[in-house]
Amino acid sequence: MRCRFCEKPAFIKLHYPRMYLCPEHFTEYFERKVKRTIERYKLIGPGERILVVVSGGKDSAVTAHVLKKLGYDIECLHINLGIGEYSEKSEEYAKRQCEALGVPLHIVRVKELLGHGIGEVRTRRPTCSYCGLTKRYIFNKFAYDNGFDAVATGHNLDDEASFIFANLMNWNTQYLAKQGPVTPEQFNGKLVKKIKPLYELTEREVVAYALANGIEYHIEECPHAVGATTIEYKGILNDMEEKRPGTKINFVKGYLRKKHLFEAELQEKELRECEVCGMPSSGEVCSFCRFWRMEKALDFSLRRK
Amino acid sequence: MRCRFCEKPAFIKLHYPRMYLCPEHFTEYFERKVKRTIERYKLIGPGERILVVVSGGKDSAVTAHVLKKLGYDIECLHINLGIGEYSEKSEEYAKRQCEALGVPLHIVRVKELLGHGIGEVRTRRPTCSYCGLTKRYIFNKFAYDNGFDAVATGHNLDDEASFIFANLMNWNTQYLAKQGPVTPEQFNGKLVKKIKPLYELTEREVVAYALANGIEYHIEECPHAVGATTIEYKGILNDMEEKRPGTKINFVKGYLRKKHLFEAELQEKELRECEVCGMPSSGEVCSFCRFWRMEKALDFSLRRK
Ligand SMILES: [Zn+2]
Ligand SMILES: [Zn+2]
Ligand SMILES: [Zn+2]
Ligand SMILES: [Zn+2]
Repeated sequence: MRCRFCEKPAFIKLHYPRMYLCPEHFTEYFERKVKRTIERYKLIGPGERILVVVSGGKDSAVTAHVLKKLGYDIECLHINLGIGEYSEKSEEYAKRQCEALGVPLHIVRVKELLGHGIGEVRTRRPTCSYCGLTKRYIFNKFAYDNGFDAVATGHNLDDEASFIFANLMNWNTQYLAKQGPVTPEQFNGKLVKKIKPLYELTEREVVAYALANGIEYHIEECPHAVGATTIEYKGILNDMEEKRPGTKINFVKGYLRKKHLFEAELQEKELRECEVCGMPSSGEVCSFCRFWRMEKALDFSLRRK
Repeated sequence: MRCRFCEKPAFIKLHYPRMYLCPEHFTEYFERKVKRTIERYKLIGPGERILVVVSGGKDSAVTAHVLKKLGYDIECLHINLGIGEYSEKSEEYAKRQCEALGVPLHIVRVKELLGHGIGEVRTRRPTCSYCGLTKRYIFNKFAYDNGFDAVATGHNLDDEASFIFANLMNWNTQYLAKQGPVTPEQFNGKLVKKIKPLYELTEREVVAYALANGIEYHIEECPHAVGATTIEYKGILNDMEEKRPGTKINFVKGYLRKKHLFEAELQEKELRECEVCGMPSSGEVCSFCRFWRMEKALDFSLRRK
């Protein structure tokens, strides 16, 4: 098969919309779709500085690549989780990706910063749970300390669809009130805006984009990885997508139209300032400072260093 | 394997709760579960007269069988849809089932009553849509005209789970506000109470109950049947159930806890009396009378005949 727009042989067959594309035209299609996502959901305003969280994996690498190519003002942050060789390799990939892109990369190493890597803490809390907490705190604080307007993550359509699907199957409706392509700045900017530029692109398209653009990335899954259920739900959604192309995007868009229904589930907890770090917290001390037994605030501001 | 409660060889392996049962103990288990459903959701009050809609298929046959065995005051209604040989056979099965049970059976034949069978009407409306409309109108009017307190249908757990699943996947949230094991009487009793005694029993359990109790039924699907999507969704739920027994019942129970969230979607349309038949209607003429171009009200009351 040939590309729909030129004479070159097709590199990918898209199912929705249905068409064959060569690497160049696929790249153009993909970038236009990211651009449209940014505009439709108002992810990035004029002149805003964006911090892209790069893990070393494909999604965040593609996010950084496309944002840079579209001309946005980005810098990258890699959080080294201190999970042995897995984290070493992840950091290497993140470095290589940012070098290739000519974008500044900042690195925060959990083990150096906090004394233990993820997976090394004695706690009854599940590893993936405090890992998420730690990452979210660090990238938000880093962005806040350095005046970024938004944090961009690599979540793609499959991530979003399976998240919504899982929370519906288990009726965890309180998680469904706030999900979406953009979470606005809150608490006088201390919770920095979060954006997901790949919100409408499938995992398959992200992989293809990386391939077409020579983006190298860490393929390995985290050894503490999310587990069988997410993979199962992604599989179910992929099967449905195959039978009825467009299932995933329509499911996610339908969710966005209806998510106000779940807002009744939100317990509006009053946020106050954490006594240790000053960041937003529901209790006296925020969950990050409590978990890591912090005695003073972390300061990521680059000017001071 | 032997039955969990006696020496007899096992007839069925239940997955949730996990146990092997002989036909007698399975029957006991099944009937106790129906009884508990009736009590938990307050489906039937003391002395209430129940009209069971029997199609000739397994679900309604088992519903009638169990309600009779549990001592409820039931009569049956079969609606012959006028779909050629399929409907003839269905009627035969319904007769045989009610005879075996010693329960009065009333029969309404759509073709005799309205001039056309289902599938014979020239209309742009999908067949399954006006079939549903017609059945619902007839069993409600029949129950109302003859003073029944409730209409029982054979919907099982798989039906309910796949209905909820389908409406979530497509975000048809307006259908999710009112679904459940019981729909109370409305409009001064003109909308008779609807109940689903098999609400917590799986299709597999219903089939096994019919087998264990020698209940014969029409296996054939309606030639206009619901179609591939429902079957696909039931398959997905069965796969999930196999991996995590209890998925279906937990999904449906979770829904019941959260369905109030969907009530915001209800357009409370003012109901008034249909100018033709006097039954509840959103417009001047109800959708049944409009579709079938009725000129006067149907009267199903048995006293007059
Ligand atoms: Zn091309
Ligand atoms: Zn804190
Ligand atoms: Zn037994
Ligand atoms: Zn009417």
